Amino acid sequence: MTETVAESKLKAAFGELQEILGERVSEALVVREHHSHGESTHPPGVPDFVCFPQSTDEVRRIVLVSVKHHLPVVPFGAGTSLEGHVHALRGGICVDMRQMNRVLRISAEDMDATVEAGVSRKQLQKTLENTGLTFFIDPGADATLGGMTATRASGTTAVRYGTMRENVLGLTVVLADGRVIHTGTRARKSSAGYDLTRLFVGSEGTLGVITEVTLRLHAQPEAVTAAICAFSTIEGAVRTVIEVIQLGVSVARIEFMDDHQVDAVNRYSGLNLALKPTLLFEFHGVSEASVAEAARMAETLSLEHGGQGFAWQTTLAERDRLWKARHDVYYATGALRPGSSVLTTDVCVPISRLAECIVATRAELDQASFPAVMVGHVGDGNFHVQCLLGPDQVAEADAFAARLVDRAQAMGGTCTGEHGVGSGKKKYLKAEHGEALEVMRDLKRMFDPENRMNPGKVVDLD
Amino acid sequence: MTETVAESKLKAAFGELQEILGERVSEALVVREHHSHGESTHPPGVPDFVCFPQSTDEVRRIVLVSVKHHLPVVPFGAGTSLEGHVHALRGGICVDMRQMNRVLRISAEDMDATVEAGVSRKQLQKTLENTGLTFFIDPGADATLGGMTATRASGTTAVRYGTMRENVLGLTVVLADGRVIHTGTRARKSSAGYDLTRLFVGSEGTLGVITEVTLRLHAQPEAVTAAICAFSTIEGAVRTVIEVIQLGVSVARIEFMDDHQVDAVNRYSGLNLALKPTLLFEFHGVSEASVAEAARMAETLSLEHGGQGFAWQTTLAERDRLWKARHDVYYATGALRPGSSVLTTDVCVPISRLAECIVATRAELDQASFPAVMVGHVGDGNFHVQCLLGPDQVAEADAFAARLVDRAQAMGGTCTGEHGVGSGKKKYLKAEHGEALEVMRDLKRMFDPENRMNPGKVVDLD
Repeated sequence: MTETVAESKLKAAFGELQEILGERVSEALVVREHHSHGESTHPPGVPDFVCFPQSTDEVRRIVLVSVKHHLPVVPFGAGTSLEGHVHALRGGICVDMRQMNRVLRISAEDMDATVEAGVSRKQLQKTLENTGLTFFIDPGADATLGGMTATRASGTTAVRYGTMRENVLGLTVVLADGRVIHTGTRARKSSAGYDLTRLFVGSEGTLGVITEVTLRLHAQPEAVTAAICAFSTIEGAVRTVIEVIQLGVSVARIEFMDDHQVDAVNRYSGLNLALKPTLLFEFHGVSEASVAEAARMAETLSLEHGGQGFAWQTTLAERDRLWKARHDVYYATGALRPGSSVLTTDVCVPISRLAECIVATRAELDQASFPAVMVGHVGDGNFHVQCLLGPDQVAEADAFAARLVDRAQAMGGTCTGEHGVGSGKKKYLKAEHGEALEVMRDLKRMFDPENRMNPGKVVDLD
Repeated sequence: MTETVAESKLKAAFGELQEILGERVSEALVVREHHSHGESTHPPGVPDFVCFPQSTDEVRRIVLVSVKHHLPVVPFGAGTSLEGHVHALRGGICVDMRQMNRVLRISAEDMDATVEAGVSRKQLQKTLENTGLTFFIDPGADATLGGMTATRASGTTAVRYGTMRENVLGLTVVLADGRVIHTGTRARKSSAGYDLTRLFVGSEGTLGVITEVTLRLHAQPEAVTAAICAFSTIEGAVRTVIEVIQLGVSVARIEFMDDHQVDAVNRYSGLNLALKPTLLFEFHGVSEASVAEAARMAETLSLEHGGQGFAWQTTLAERDRLWKARHDVYYATGALRPGSSVLTTDVCVPISRLAECIVATRAELDQASFPAVMVGHVGDGNFHVQCLLGPDQVAEADAFAARLVDRAQAMGGTCTGEHGVGSGKKKYLKAEHGEALEVMRDLKRMFDPENRMNPGKVVDLD
């Protein structure tokens, strides 16, 4: 049988990739299928090859193969994306970054570190043990730092320590034409030209492949305390959050669970929390006195706004149990309805509109045919709805999610606070950005005129 | 006498600008000369016209005149730039933003505000009085918030509250072709596409004209205390700063003055400080107890590293005197040698290299023919040398400044921490950014293919 042009092109590309990587490139179907999707329900996309580079220079040479053969390049980290970022929608070369997993440099004095993009956040935290420093950004999953950079990720601590936007100081990036650039410096601040670092943070592999990340670290707090408080109303909980932040109380985490989420957590983690809108607090400070003072202020404000007992969790064991339960909500929720698929939303609104947004959303969910829970990083105005779906409920949930995005955008908010656009949220960007979306398209064309870099994500060119 | 083509083009443009602005456009030489320079020694550039728009739509229409007649557009704020940003090097239309000076919106709950670009930082602070909120970024001058955004400015509080990079949430920008875009949302965080906000922060008018800025505000601290401490060595002072930050002590300001700077401040502000390397601290907190605790920790660390008495400044009058003296250093220094011109440097290095950088720089200055003082935002690794020059010392100072930039860049630092590139620092960008400078040029070409937007600043296209 004669080879088609496409087949011979792929054969040539595979040979060239083998020359660069030896055994570290695969065309085995099982490997390709493993790399065809993240943790979402978006349709998978199977790459033609999966590469496992060990250096920026190998990534550069892989990109040159993609240039020569006009093949897409799709970076792959831990595969925990929720918006289809890693799906090879047009085939091509999947670049699995997990073998670029060295922590290259830690500076205790400068409180920064440089890592390869495949290092996971937990790996970095472990490496930092006994340095007095840590890295706080904690999406639920043990994502890679390259992936977290590419999606502008955050998590429960953003209210105090910021998102990847604030915590990435510099990058090494392989551009679509194979050029390698370094952005940023090791100085804490700079006014020396356009902010390329922030342009790549959140670019989801569509402008280039991030291979190294320089990160800001934070002091491991000398003292930590936590607390949990049930509220009679959602408004009371949100009002408490607003006043805690307005007062400048140094809260490191301030998380919301609705009563349905509390129920799921109780069942999964063996807790016995009241089935009420609930806030979880964590306070970081330089001394027991300072965290106790912060917690007392939060307690006072909570009780003023319908808080029903503010339970301090001062021991490490209590705190760990609480935050493990919080971080396990994804699994706790799934266990409510085994075998269901999970749709997770990610809107973020100005905090002044948050109670209104949550209440309206809960009212809609009470009419839905599927169960759903809500959990949120309320200090940022960001909350997630997890919808547990049978096969015939996907369309209903998609329509709900679209209405939720409309509501959030009408309030001055965003369709995604921390999960990214991927392929799933492209349809919402025109309403959010208006004419600025055309500028984003222009940027994509400038960096990647052939549309090879993770095509079909963030913006469409065709 | 026959008009030249250039003259008739300018005449036509002036007529069109008058149609838009009426009396609010001037071709008077005195007005043009006033708008030909900032506060630096860079050669001035006189614009052909000066416009005083009062709305984004007027700016849009001004830009359309520039499109039609191929005229440069140079935004102008308070005129306090130190790197020639506002100099109309190729003539054209100066857009003085000071009549766009309305605070459009303040949200106490969301802790943000939207202002027109011509609002000054002190005007915003005054408007925020009695809201419990404030805006902390404080370059010495009373700059406009549009200008501060355009240069990615910061000041003494960046160690705690960040720079304009962290505190701008969204922008309205008129692009080179007259399109108006809105970047960012009012949500605290978003992963919805490329970070256009951060791309315009620090773009110095070269990618578009910023007309509105949405800013993050901070809680007015309930308690404030300050302290001053002289050290026997520069190393001891910097080591103290490193440990204060590593410990997570909540310091809002931590400023360095060398002995020459202290001398200037003593003379100008009538103080009697020891002629030693000196740190100024300010602590913000939710209570007197928490700021006292932070100050005690800083005191302990200071005394461990050669601090010679840690003088608390607890009353408002004491604190105001101290910080007024700090903010007046530019004038205090000028008064050391009346009639001299002042060259101010702005390097920023990783804090681990800061003592070495300052010591090497002081050693050079001790051999110079001109007097010079050093003052710095040491928590960020940023310091300024102010050189007091007679007419025949400019070349010597320029050579010194170039060597200082080389030293800082070799340490992983930047040529400018907060003043921006303008025309003055373009020559240093290749060494700092390497291949990434080509990407900056590509961005400039994409946004402004005709090179009309503040030409000759940040990057050169020709």
